[in-house]
Amino acid sequence: MTSAPPRLGVAVIGAGYWGPNLVRNAQATPELQLRYLCDLDAARAAKVLGEYSTVQVATSVDEVLADPAVDAVAIATPAASHYAVAMAALEAGKHVLVEKPLAPTYDEGRALVETADRLGQVLMIDHTFCYTNAVQQLRQMIHGGELGELQYLDSVRINLGIVQRDVDVLWDLAPHDLSIFENILPPGVTAVEVAAQGSDPVGAGRACVAYLTLKLSNGVLAHVHVNWLSPTKIRNMIIGGSQRMVVWDDLSMNQKLAVYDSGVGISAETLDLDDRAATIVSYRNGDMVAPAMPNNEALRGVMAEFVAAINEKRAPLTDGWSGLRVLAMLEAASTSLSSGGAFVPIRDVDQPAHLSAGSNGVIA
Amino acid sequence: MTSAPPRLGVAVIGAGYWGPNLVRNAQATPELQLRYLCDLDAARAAKVLGEYSTVQVATSVDEVLADPAVDAVAIATPAASHYAVAMAALEAGKHVLVEKPLAPTYDEGRALVETADRLGQVLMIDHTFCYTNAVQQLRQMIHGGELGELQYLDSVRINLGIVQRDVDVLWDLAPHDLSIFENILPPGVTAVEVAAQGSDPVGAGRACVAYLTLKLSNGVLAHVHVNWLSPTKIRNMIIGGSQRMVVWDDLSMNQKLAVYDSGVGISAETLDLDDRAATIVSYRNGDMVAPAMPNNEALRGVMAEFVAAINEKRAPLTDGWSGLRVLAMLEAASTSLSSGGAFVPIRDVDQPAHLSAGSNGVIA
Amino acid sequence: MTSAPPRLGVAVIGAGYWGPNLVRNAQATPELQLRYLCDLDAARAAKVLGEYSTVQVATSVDEVLADPAVDAVAIATPAASHYAVAMAALEAGKHVLVEKPLAPTYDEGRALVETADRLGQVLMIDHTFCYTNAVQQLRQMIHGGELGELQYLDSVRINLGIVQRDVDVLWDLAPHDLSIFENILPPGVTAVEVAAQGSDPVGAGRACVAYLTLKLSNGVLAHVHVNWLSPTKIRNMIIGGSQRMVVWDDLSMNQKLAVYDSGVGISAETLDLDDRAATIVSYRNGDMVAPAMPNNEALRGVMAEFVAAINEKRAPLTDGWSGLRVLAMLEAASTSLSSGGAFVPIRDVDQPAHLSAGSNGVIA
Amino acid sequence: MTSAPPRLGVAVIGAGYWGPNLVRNAQATPELQLRYLCDLDAARAAKVLGEYSTVQVATSVDEVLADPAVDAVAIATPAASHYAVAMAALEAGKHVLVEKPLAPTYDEGRALVETADRLGQVLMIDHTFCYTNAVQQLRQMIHGGELGELQYLDSVRINLGIVQRDVDVLWDLAPHDLSIFENILPPGVTAVEVAAQGSDPVGAGRACVAYLTLKLSNGVLAHVHVNWLSPTKIRNMIIGGSQRMVVWDDLSMNQKLAVYDSGVGISAETLDLDDRAATIVSYRNGDMVAPAMPNNEALRGVMAEFVAAINEKRAPLTDGWSGLRVLAMLEAASTSLSSGGAFVPIRDVDQPAHLSAGSNGVIA
Repeated sequence: MTSAPPRLGVAVIGAGYWGPNLVRNAQATPELQLRYLCDLDAARAAKVLGEYSTVQVATSVDEVLADPAVDAVAIATPAASHYAVAMAALEAGKHVLVEKPLAPTYDEGRALVETADRLGQVLMIDHTFCYTNAVQQLRQMIHGGELGELQYLDSVRINLGIVQRDVDVLWDLAPHDLSIFENILPPGVTAVEVAAQGSDPVGAGRACVAYLTLKLSNGVLAHVHVNWLSPTKIRNMIIGGSQRMVVWDDLSMNQKLAVYDSGVGISAETLDLDDRAATIVSYRNGDMVAPAMPNNEALRGVMAEFVAAINEKRAPLTDGWSGLRVLAMLEAASTSLSSGGAFVPIRDVDQPAHLSAGSNGVIA
Repeated sequence: MTSAPPRLGVAVIGAGYWGPNLVRNAQATPELQLRYLCDLDAARAAKVLGEYSTVQVATSVDEVLADPAVDAVAIATPAASHYAVAMAALEAGKHVLVEKPLAPTYDEGRALVETADRLGQVLMIDHTFCYTNAVQQLRQMIHGGELGELQYLDSVRINLGIVQRDVDVLWDLAPHDLSIFENILPPGVTAVEVAAQGSDPVGAGRACVAYLTLKLSNGVLAHVHVNWLSPTKIRNMIIGGSQRMVVWDDLSMNQKLAVYDSGVGISAETLDLDDRAATIVSYRNGDMVAPAMPNNEALRGVMAEFVAAINEKRAPLTDGWSGLRVLAMLEAASTSLSSGGAFVPIRDVDQPAHLSAGSNGVIA
Repeated sequence: MTSAPPRLGVAVIGAGYWGPNLVRNAQATPELQLRYLCDLDAARAAKVLGEYSTVQVATSVDEVLADPAVDAVAIATPAASHYAVAMAALEAGKHVLVEKPLAPTYDEGRALVETADRLGQVLMIDHTFCYTNAVQQLRQMIHGGELGELQYLDSVRINLGIVQRDVDVLWDLAPHDLSIFENILPPGVTAVEVAAQGSDPVGAGRACVAYLTLKLSNGVLAHVHVNWLSPTKIRNMIIGGSQRMVVWDDLSMNQKLAVYDSGVGISAETLDLDDRAATIVSYRNGDMVAPAMPNNEALRGVMAEFVAAINEKRAPLTDGWSGLRVLAMLEAASTSLSSGGAFVPIRDVDQPAHLSAGSNGVIA
Repeated sequence: MTSAPPRLGVAVIGAGYWGPNLVRNAQATPELQLRYLCDLDAARAAKVLGEYSTVQVATSVDEVLADPAVDAVAIATPAASHYAVAMAALEAGKHVLVEKPLAPTYDEGRALVETADRLGQVLMIDHTFCYTNAVQQLRQMIHGGELGELQYLDSVRINLGIVQRDVDVLWDLAPHDLSIFENILPPGVTAVEVAAQGSDPVGAGRACVAYLTLKLSNGVLAHVHVNWLSPTKIRNMIIGGSQRMVVWDDLSMNQKLAVYDSGVGISAETLDLDDRAATIVSYRNGDMVAPAMPNNEALRGVMAEFVAAINEKRAPLTDGWSGLRVLAMLEAASTSLSSGGAFVPIRDVDQPAHLSAGSNGVIA
């Protein structure tokens, strides 16, 4: 009989938009002991905790990092400060969970993952969607070959959203889609080029509507439509495969995933003839299955994976390298957006082989 | 009291996919007298008419064009033959209604519209969607200024469709979206550049999935997603405006148009300061109105407009020049698609001012 | 090699609301030769046929029935005349397809089925919905035991409909639901009692909103909500079973049937104890399957079954007895409606055993 | 300048299904100070509060009621204990918020409201739905005459729900619909009779499927369908009026209310003639408006109204009398259900005029 490991002391840094969710889920995770909510604005932190809480408010990151009872931090500060706070935490010997994007630039993100690797600490990125039942089933279906050959991915993430002050719609919304792609693509398949078009029809000073087209290393196209100015909210991803096709409607309550036994195929024998007129195209329009999926809170899964990675001394499913790969896609997309919309190569993230998340990233 | 004009004799040429619809609607139009259904395959034409019909089957276009009782023809032959058949009909003194695309190439299309103009005959393109209640309301709303400043247009037209033998998905489906854009855009606004990306994941020999991004002369982006390989059918257009936003779901039975009193705005005064931090973004999330719309058959409206244009000796709403403008967009899109996806200029269709459809194209 | 039987001459009687559909489908059925469209109003009949038709207009039923080239008639006259026209046709030796309701009263309906049986002619009722793919799949699932023990049936058929002059909403709309129930219920299960409540909130002189609750012979409740005054159109049937549950949304284009592997069960062992507190209720919330279903036109199937029944000298799937059973339910419902809404027994239709439709009614 | 009234001390009694929601919302209400969560099972109460809470756990209601710092209690114990706990609280001088149903029987409920009235304390029933934006808008539209003459109400509340051990589906789910009806009906209109049919197809020992038909004092029918065995979740209410019709879909995220400018009318002049054949029925099929509605948490509004009623010494919107009227409907429905489904009179709740909630129940 083994005893449970001692609880991990954790601090949440940042009491803005996402911080309260981290606080709530840290409190609900038995293996974590929430010690601080830290924000420059003590009143804001106190308000998030409410008057009935025993959790401490802190206003100094240094103070929090100096407390040996804090084993780990979850960072939800503005993107511009991610690098500085995360680096300080790593150097103070803390495990780090950081909101997306990992850092404002690829180079800073790279410094973070290399520091974490060198120090042997967990650096995890909160790609929340990767912990939903929907994405986990998509990943299983694709990795397990259920869809057959991948044909295309198309994601739409639009609504009447907040025009952010610090980032454009690409950096605000597309990290969700890119992190999902990164998570579910077949092992070894990566994005190699990206073309981006966008516009700022309200004069906000940054793109409010944007389209991304990614070329994957297997030749497949993946497309993302993000938009802050849409009157309706759509969260829809369609993934075509030679055997099955899937529609994920994240806003549906009862039918998030619809798996279609449908497809279009070209008979192989006729292709040998190079005789287009004789090509036989076949269509399947089969049953649709909407798998039963319990409604879980994805952020609970994020916390569980963070704890498990720390306790098992392994990379989490969404480790720093995942965050870095998304950063590489975003930077290339920004380059394309500002230079005429043509395809631009995506930096190859030469992750050391012994640190591949894909090989050991298992969700607890 | 005026007597009705004599009925116009009409022949439908082509008994394939769309021909039967032309036959049915021509028969239901009191001002038309359907005299022939013409197809190289007499049995196919006879089957379309059914055994109870008094309409004549013809197998020779020349024979049909030689009959002086035929005042007009409606052409639904394969795209490759549009130019030859339409030109022969015009030269035989017939008015012409032709399916999209107007012709296989811009130059052939241009020859058709110039011939029709020179001869003073009606050349109409069957941009069927422009005769739906939905598009007519969109046109009125945009032309009447109800949406305010146009912000973006986004159209999705995907389903498990037939992989065509002669055209890619761009030429098969996007003409619908482009002809709708052409019809509803504010007077004077045109598409000036287009970027296109696409792929052929099933090995069909032509793009089966494609994305188009159009830059309009007013700086607005318009985007089209067409796809033959989607398990679900989507026919959705979103149009953003500074005053109102509209979602058109063509598959909805009760709520095709949803007009949102919603929007995002930037306060004008703060822009003078070039002080981004002080920019005031305002959001409206107001009521939605779904206007009552009777269900009409758009093709009935096409026939009525064809008749009216002939009788009133005027250009129809969707005249040859409309078809030509769509051809110009398609050709530029193909160029972009095959050359890396960057923006490509769209040929300027320098329509003679006295022939502007916008000025006199009124739906009867 | 057998030769095809000679074509059956058919006449459609009644050129009102439904007649045109019968005309169109009779024309599209190769085994039928449409000889007449008969209506007291010759102009209306001529308009239905259109100017391009070779079908004859008739204004006298007697004249039509006297023509030996007419083997069968399809009757779509107002309900009040169904008995007289159908009886005359049977006595003239014609096979009869009649719109619902079979006759204005049970006794007249009974006279029709007995006459048809005596004369050995086909008397078929146009319960159109029974020829849709959806109802045929429901019937197969229930008869094949896929749903397990039937638990309940609930049908909603509401919209902003025409307030009929001659019948209330019960007689106008509920025949659809009742004929579907009659068609899909497990063999031997019949409706034994019915309670009906209704109201006339617009002062139309007849119920415009009504609710029916049927008690079936196996103890199950079946409920019908019909309403002419609903702003939205709903055509929804839910069928609960111990093994599976089905939702049929007739207005859905892609997903008419949804079969849920869900259910609620009571563990059998605990029931022996008669100890309610210990009862174990189990819940299954499994996958949903939407079977692929081609879109057929049900009335085409009606015509095919009419032809097959005549040629094979057998009862059609929806024979006169089906129509009579629906009449019995409607009469009992009217009695309940006008007498306080309590349960009222439904007349037992003692169909002679050798004439059971269920045993031989197979759709061609 | 007036100072805020001192905060009210509150205790939540019952840490089962609904208690945690009361705890959360009491904590979020600035005018309340949550002092206890009381449950016989201390561990359950402690788990609800979590390890970071300063709120006290109590296991004795008496102890809680003896604390003078407790001004009010919110009761979420099993229904069978509502009477005893609420009566004890009232007699201890506390204001009471109680979950539905008010009490297990009408007589006990009556004793509670009379005690509260006698002692001058607030007795409020947690008819949560009455505090949603949707119901508040419905109430305003009906009270303000926007719908015209009420024509019918139809409510469906079905899903795969928990088969309760202590109550049937009628008592479990219908209180929601009945309390909404009670809240939105025009002033002075009450339910006078109810017919109920139901069944227990799984052998649970109580009705799992039930239908209620209420006759209102203005002649209108209101119908409720409740079902624990439905594979899909539906929360849908349709309200017909002579001027407008409303559909409330509580599960829709963006379009909870749809207000249709549609209707069916009978021209008044023709009614004088008593000539049915000449009656002119008119149909309007106008625009639909979906009013913008912020997403609030209704239970926050319940707490606010509880506080306001206490501070302003007035009856809350959903006072004990509302709860009593719902009890009267439920008891009559149970009588009808067990006695053949015929209409049964509903007990007239002769509320003293000076205590009418409708006159002073205003939501803060």
